[in-house]
Amino acid sequence: MNKASICTIGDEILIGQIVDTNSSEISRALNGMGIQVTRMISIGDRHEAIVGQLGEELSRNDIVIVTGGLGPTKDDITKAALAELSGSRSYVENSEQKEIVVRILHSRGLDVLDINLQQAMVPDSCEVIPNRLGTAPIMAFHFPEERFGHKCSLYSLPGVPYEAVGMLPDVLADIKSRFNTSDIYHQTIMTYGMAESALAKKIEAWEDALPEDMHLAYLPNLLTGVRLRLSIYGGERESQERRISERFSELRQIIGDVIYAEEDTTIEAVIGILLKGSGRTLAAAESCTGGMISHMITSVPGASEYYLGSVTSYAVDIKNRILGVPLEVVEKYGIVSSQVAAAMAEGVRAALGSTYSVATTGWADSYGDEREPAGTVWVAVSGPSGTLTSRFNYKNSRKLNISRFAASALNELRKYIVADIK
Amino acid sequence: MNKASICTIGDEILIGQIVDTNSSEISRALNGMGIQVTRMISIGDRHEAIVGQLGEELSRNDIVIVTGGLGPTKDDITKAALAELSGSRSYVENSEQKEIVVRILHSRGLDVLDINLQQAMVPDSCEVIPNRLGTAPIMAFHFPEERFGHKCSLYSLPGVPYEAVGMLPDVLADIKSRFNTSDIYHQTIMTYGMAESALAKKIEAWEDALPEDMHLAYLPNLLTGVRLRLSIYGGERESQERRISERFSELRQIIGDVIYAEEDTTIEAVIGILLKGSGRTLAAAESCTGGMISHMITSVPGASEYYLGSVTSYAVDIKNRILGVPLEVVEKYGIVSSQVAAAMAEGVRAALGSTYSVATTGWADSYGDEREPAGTVWVAVSGPSGTLTSRFNYKNSRKLNISRFAASALNELRKYIVADIK
Repeated sequence: MNKASICTIGDEILIGQIVDTNSSEISRALNGMGIQVTRMISIGDRHEAIVGQLGEELSRNDIVIVTGGLGPTKDDITKAALAELSGSRSYVENSEQKEIVVRILHSRGLDVLDINLQQAMVPDSCEVIPNRLGTAPIMAFHFPEERFGHKCSLYSLPGVPYEAVGMLPDVLADIKSRFNTSDIYHQTIMTYGMAESALAKKIEAWEDALPEDMHLAYLPNLLTGVRLRLSIYGGERESQERRISERFSELRQIIGDVIYAEEDTTIEAVIGILLKGSGRTLAAAESCTGGMISHMITSVPGASEYYLGSVTSYAVDIKNRILGVPLEVVEKYGIVSSQVAAAMAEGVRAALGSTYSVATTGWADSYGDEREPAGTVWVAVSGPSGTLTSRFNYKNSRKLNISRFAASALNELRKYIVADIK
Repeated sequence: MNKASICTIGDEILIGQIVDTNSSEISRALNGMGIQVTRMISIGDRHEAIVGQLGEELSRNDIVIVTGGLGPTKDDITKAALAELSGSRSYVENSEQKEIVVRILHSRGLDVLDINLQQAMVPDSCEVIPNRLGTAPIMAFHFPEERFGHKCSLYSLPGVPYEAVGMLPDVLADIKSRFNTSDIYHQTIMTYGMAESALAKKIEAWEDALPEDMHLAYLPNLLTGVRLRLSIYGGERESQERRISERFSELRQIIGDVIYAEEDTTIEAVIGILLKGSGRTLAAAESCTGGMISHMITSVPGASEYYLGSVTSYAVDIKNRILGVPLEVVEKYGIVSSQVAAAMAEGVRAALGSTYSVATTGWADSYGDEREPAGTVWVAVSGPSGTLTSRFNYKNSRKLNISRFAASALNELRKYIVADIK
């Protein structure tokens, strides 16, 4: 199995001003083609550190993917380090990339500056994979066995996530043409509503009985719940996939009630699958979640087919005037209550004319009122089978509480729709 | 200056199923106290790899921060690796952490399982910093000079971001008590609306005249624009901060029109500062941005003081019925048009009764109509000075287009408010 290392270059990562999301995308892609990512590393914008670290990574791995350090501005020095590493003495212009640079800048109505044109200059030791999405070319350096003790390749990609991820298929195609890629088989089950440790306890006997060559991982996530991933390296695709699938059938008997999908997805995407082509529609009314539920629903491509819209009623007055929540209900039960959530859900469903609706009202901050403590949310789901409410309490920061409120609300909505369309 | 390395343990990161956000938070904090983060590294859940890599990091650094690999489930093996690395033969129970485990599980209404109690067991070679936010203790290992050639410390934190980041102050306090921490001075200027390369060209002469010991970094971000960070290592705080501030005064003369803040912040936070305590209020009407603007506005603590709410009008019918956008206007100018954006902004301002409003209508996907191409958004801002509209076009994926639409709309809103309250 080929080994790979993913290296990110840039002081902005080391000082913590940006989060590296490229490495995650790249490693997922490499894993999918059976290349084992042995490590990811971030280093700063210092020439010696870059040359030294990349040399070390090449000694230990077959493939090294580098992102970052290729922008037009002065703090980017990756190209010079790569020239030194590969023993290149001169730069050549890549005409294909130069054309792209000019075209992109023109399409944005910008002048073509000297610093932009310099981006098309590359060390003469590399092969260029033209970057159609940006101005910095992708450089591939292929090293003979003599250089690092084994045949190996280094690919340098720009740091901008849109370009790095967008151009990845071209890089993977080049890797595929040069290395024997083996296979890895994964399957993922998505669960929501049970904590990692409780889940582990419940499936302990099943997990202990897994064969030696299968690996189970628990991947908890606030928005999507605990993912369970079962994987096997190598072997024949069809039989290995069947083996995983058989184990998951057993698992379904044990924790079927918290499983919402048998592939890597999100609750809002599952809702989309349930509603698309059904003629049924959806609306939302948000208070404490402030638009996040609507944002998550509309992150799913094609959501306009079933999603009518939402009302964020941050002020009490808006709950009353736009959603028709009676002020007496607010007065009597409190703003964070089952009754207000239900009235919001019913109000938005009536106002927008949707089949289903979901609503939230809660205390996301560190304070509550005399009725409900900080971290409490009431969720209501309304539809043809009536209105159901549920209460959740989380003890996180404002930001995390908002996320967990939104995820819990979407999961209640999903359960309601599943039961309703049965 | 003390050097640090940040290591993340877990196959879930190497296979790309989760993005590491802890390292970024931790490095920002270490930098702030003058500790230089030399690298960040992610390795898998393999005993030998962990022992080997952490040994290497300790040889090269004064401080090593480890996150991840401490959960209750079976795929977590960090603790055993740390025991080996520190030559520990036995585990001891930490009574303080045990109490926390029991208290947390009870407060969540969960049973205390054996695997939970095992979390309070630690190698006898470590000092425990109790983790008040979760069940896994923070372990500190202090190595004498003989072990790695210099005095060094390793801190092992849980991987859950809420716990790792929340407990960081306790870890930093421990570091401060053991190491001589020097200082680094940063200042950040936030710009929005000018591309990185154009910005670099415009400030080239200023940048070239910077003294040797000052370092400028460009940090582009879709939601917050290009951040410019000027930093100096060491020296006396007051005079160094004055030197940076003088350089930034010069910069203000050159690019004052795109600067929206002189500290590390966001556009929505600046809007909050403009509106808090002013008695002025805000509402939003969203189409293509689907709730993201509202979500961003309500991510600012205290937003309820000035934010009334929003309407997400995904369906044309909702634009008409709730926001009062005339169907003839949609018919005549197209759904993505200056006129529809303006009618949405005016409609939501009237319906919710706010001082200001912002609205978006656009094509976020890869298709447009005969009037406007894919990637186009019309933004309208309405308030006491009338209604202003602007058009933007981006050529990214659906997801990125939505983000850039929302950021551009918030920036137009910010500019409007600044001009209005003058």
